[in-house]
Amino acid sequence: MDARSTATTELTAVELRDRIAQGALKAREAAEAFLQRVRERDGEIGAFAWHDPDFVRHQADALDRHRESGRPLGALHGVPVALKDIIDTARIPTANGTAMDAGRTPGRDAAIVERLKAEGAIILGKTVTTELAGMEPAGTRNPHNTAHTPGGSSSGSAAAVAAGMAPLAIGTQTRGSVIRPAAFCGVTGFKPTFGAIPRTGVLRQSQTLDTVGVFARTVEDAAMLAEALFGADEHDPATAPAPHPRLLETARSKPPVKPMFALVHTPFRDRADAQTGAALAELAAFLGENCFEAELPEVFAGAPAIVETINLAEMSKNCARYLDRGRDTLGERTVAALEKGSAITARDYLAALDWREVLYAGLAEIFERCDAIITPAAPGPAPRGLESTGDPVFNELWTLCGTPAITIPAFEAENGLPMGVQLIGPRGHDGRLLRTARWLADTLAAGSTEEERYG
Amino acid sequence: MDARSTATTELTAVELRDRIAQGALKAREAAEAFLQRVRERDGEIGAFAWHDPDFVRHQADALDRHRESGRPLGALHGVPVALKDIIDTARIPTANGTAMDAGRTPGRDAAIVERLKAEGAIILGKTVTTELAGMEPAGTRNPHNTAHTPGGSSSGSAAAVAAGMAPLAIGTQTRGSVIRPAAFCGVTGFKPTFGAIPRTGVLRQSQTLDTVGVFARTVEDAAMLAEALFGADEHDPATAPAPHPRLLETARSKPPVKPMFALVHTPFRDRADAQTGAALAELAAFLGENCFEAELPEVFAGAPAIVETINLAEMSKNCARYLDRGRDTLGERTVAALEKGSAITARDYLAALDWREVLYAGLAEIFERCDAIITPAAPGPAPRGLESTGDPVFNELWTLCGTPAITIPAFEAENGLPMGVQLIGPRGHDGRLLRTARWLADTLAAGSTEEERYG
Repeated sequence: MDARSTATTELTAVELRDRIAQGALKAREAAEAFLQRVRERDGEIGAFAWHDPDFVRHQADALDRHRESGRPLGALHGVPVALKDIIDTARIPTANGTAMDAGRTPGRDAAIVERLKAEGAIILGKTVTTELAGMEPAGTRNPHNTAHTPGGSSSGSAAAVAAGMAPLAIGTQTRGSVIRPAAFCGVTGFKPTFGAIPRTGVLRQSQTLDTVGVFARTVEDAAMLAEALFGADEHDPATAPAPHPRLLETARSKPPVKPMFALVHTPFRDRADAQTGAALAELAAFLGENCFEAELPEVFAGAPAIVETINLAEMSKNCARYLDRGRDTLGERTVAALEKGSAITARDYLAALDWREVLYAGLAEIFERCDAIITPAAPGPAPRGLESTGDPVFNELWTLCGTPAITIPAFEAENGLPMGVQLIGPRGHDGRLLRTARWLADTLAAGSTEEERYG
Repeated sequence: MDARSTATTELTAVELRDRIAQGALKAREAAEAFLQRVRERDGEIGAFAWHDPDFVRHQADALDRHRESGRPLGALHGVPVALKDIIDTARIPTANGTAMDAGRTPGRDAAIVERLKAEGAIILGKTVTTELAGMEPAGTRNPHNTAHTPGGSSSGSAAAVAAGMAPLAIGTQTRGSVIRPAAFCGVTGFKPTFGAIPRTGVLRQSQTLDTVGVFARTVEDAAMLAEALFGADEHDPATAPAPHPRLLETARSKPPVKPMFALVHTPFRDRADAQTGAALAELAAFLGENCFEAELPEVFAGAPAIVETINLAEMSKNCARYLDRGRDTLGERTVAALEKGSAITARDYLAALDWREVLYAGLAEIFERCDAIITPAAPGPAPRGLESTGDPVFNELWTLCGTPAITIPAFEAENGLPMGVQLIGPRGHDGRLLRTARWLADTLAAGSTEEERYG
């Protein structure tokens, strides 16, 4: 690896974008640096499901010509982005992690891909997803220790960013598929408010839960990418027209007062390992009077069962053709999920849907007293082996409630693997959550919460 | 019956409203006329589930005082309206047609009742509904022949208007519960576009299908009442903010060109009796070159099964407490519906939901060529006996598609009972459908389609 490509791939995405915009770096040079990283690392990691260096160079050269013509630049001009392989890309294979869809080339881009292109992003490739974005593990390895899972289902997106192969990547979360792999891989993962980013052209697994999210190395980078993706699309009924948020500007801004955190002990605390509990307790102590502890009412213990009912019922309908026509091609866990989902009654499904608003209402009292909830991103660091992508129990409640969630790398486990801390904000307050997370990341980096540092 | 009350109850609702507004008639006088009709007719008909003459007089007197004070009048000032007994009324019993809810008095009014009161309407009473607005017949009789059903589930609302006991009434349609009883009782029934009128505070039987509709003696009267009820309510997610339509003004206006009709032979035509088919053929001939015949693709034959899946699945969840806690109090048909619904899988339910837009898209080609579809309102006149409320097969497709539908009395069956003709328009074009229906009603009354009469 030469020094030049190292330097470039270590820039934040915001820096990369700014240098390219200023003419200090060509999009082609940036692209070559990341292509070099993919060549060096992806044989071992297996983050990419589809990657064509010449296609990347072709886009980079076109963007450099665009810049030289003096025309205005998009907000992601020249920045490579990797896409989970359940996101449709026109004329580029999108296999949804399945054998049945191998070689499938969609006729048109997903809405978010259109937005990326409009902002001048480079499509770096498609990243490995678990089968139908479910629980059947794929082959991707954790860049921090290849004997461990990177998490799932957005396995390749998390690993690509963690290995420096992509400055930014997009994934989706139906239970815990953005926050969990981001935490396992030691990167920032941001799952916005449900409905903030349209899912048109993204595999529909579970329409009540599916949420597009982003992976980046910093909170500001996540904000920059998410800002390009936010906004209603007429074909996704979960979206609604709203003023476009200035996520990057907000994320970079100084909080008006020092943020207040609520350390929330979920009813699932027994499923976290001892070091996770200790790390959060230490963080709470570090935050001092700016962190209080809160309990969730016992009714929240039902969330995993509610999420499973909604998810499997919707998946059994949305993915029926895979079971009906390609059962033998599917993994055991996918078949089991689809069969279990097919047996759920509409009455139970509809009853489960009602809990979404009931549980969210139950969070109001906590949100009134804090800027963000602090809670584990996962039960512990990435499990050893590739047989499981890990447990989404600390994520699915927030996916159900549709709240924005972000994980930032915050701790190191005893075995040296990274661990994240998850922050949760009220629906629609994505910018504020990003600002709070950026403040926390800076404060942890500085090792101080002193008054003079909080801005 | 004295001449004064006869004259008053035979006024159209628009005339009644105008006379009261002009001071030619007191609200109290109008109320007494309708109270007199209820005394005379309701013992035999059984349209009212709750009716308190003193409460009616109290409202009328308050409205007369309001008018005398010179304050502005609502659009329905002094006009009595009867409400199906699944519509919540504060401090007034609302039993949902069930033994379990007998004597239940809601704490607050349904959104539409608030709107009625804001417009100065008089709540005349609550009208008989079938149990949970389902298929279990109630005791109401058809005013045209008391040996026949008035139809259901809005049995009392249709019968009250037909018997002259109320100038206006409100009902709901989940399959065919506005159009069918209106046709059986020889009155105008109007089911607006799905989501046009909020259902907040109305029994939720099937959220995908439940639609509030109105009963009146003329199209203009239906338009006047519907106009007062239209508009979004934050608690009904099916509604959306939109400019308030001027339904009465549009209904009264002259069509810009002579309306074009499509006589649509549904896949259910074999379920209509011979006289219904003959009557529609005669109507098509009468309309001449302003009516063409059209077929629906075979896929529409699946609509009744789709509607049943959606309706029973949602009802089994929404009305679960009646089965779980009061099974012995329910009628056989209600128990059978709830049990059948409880066995429907979420997968089948979700698949059925998809058909709504698919079938509606299949109507586009017909709607491009006509102002309204003409189709039977029911398979024939009201069946003899009270054991069944009749067959909604000619209504449920339109309920599923969410199109506005209206029936106007158009024919007389061999047994002397009235028969309606149903007109269907595209979603959101409620005003145009009312205008077309008013034109047809006037034209039929005049017995001529000559050019000079079409205005």
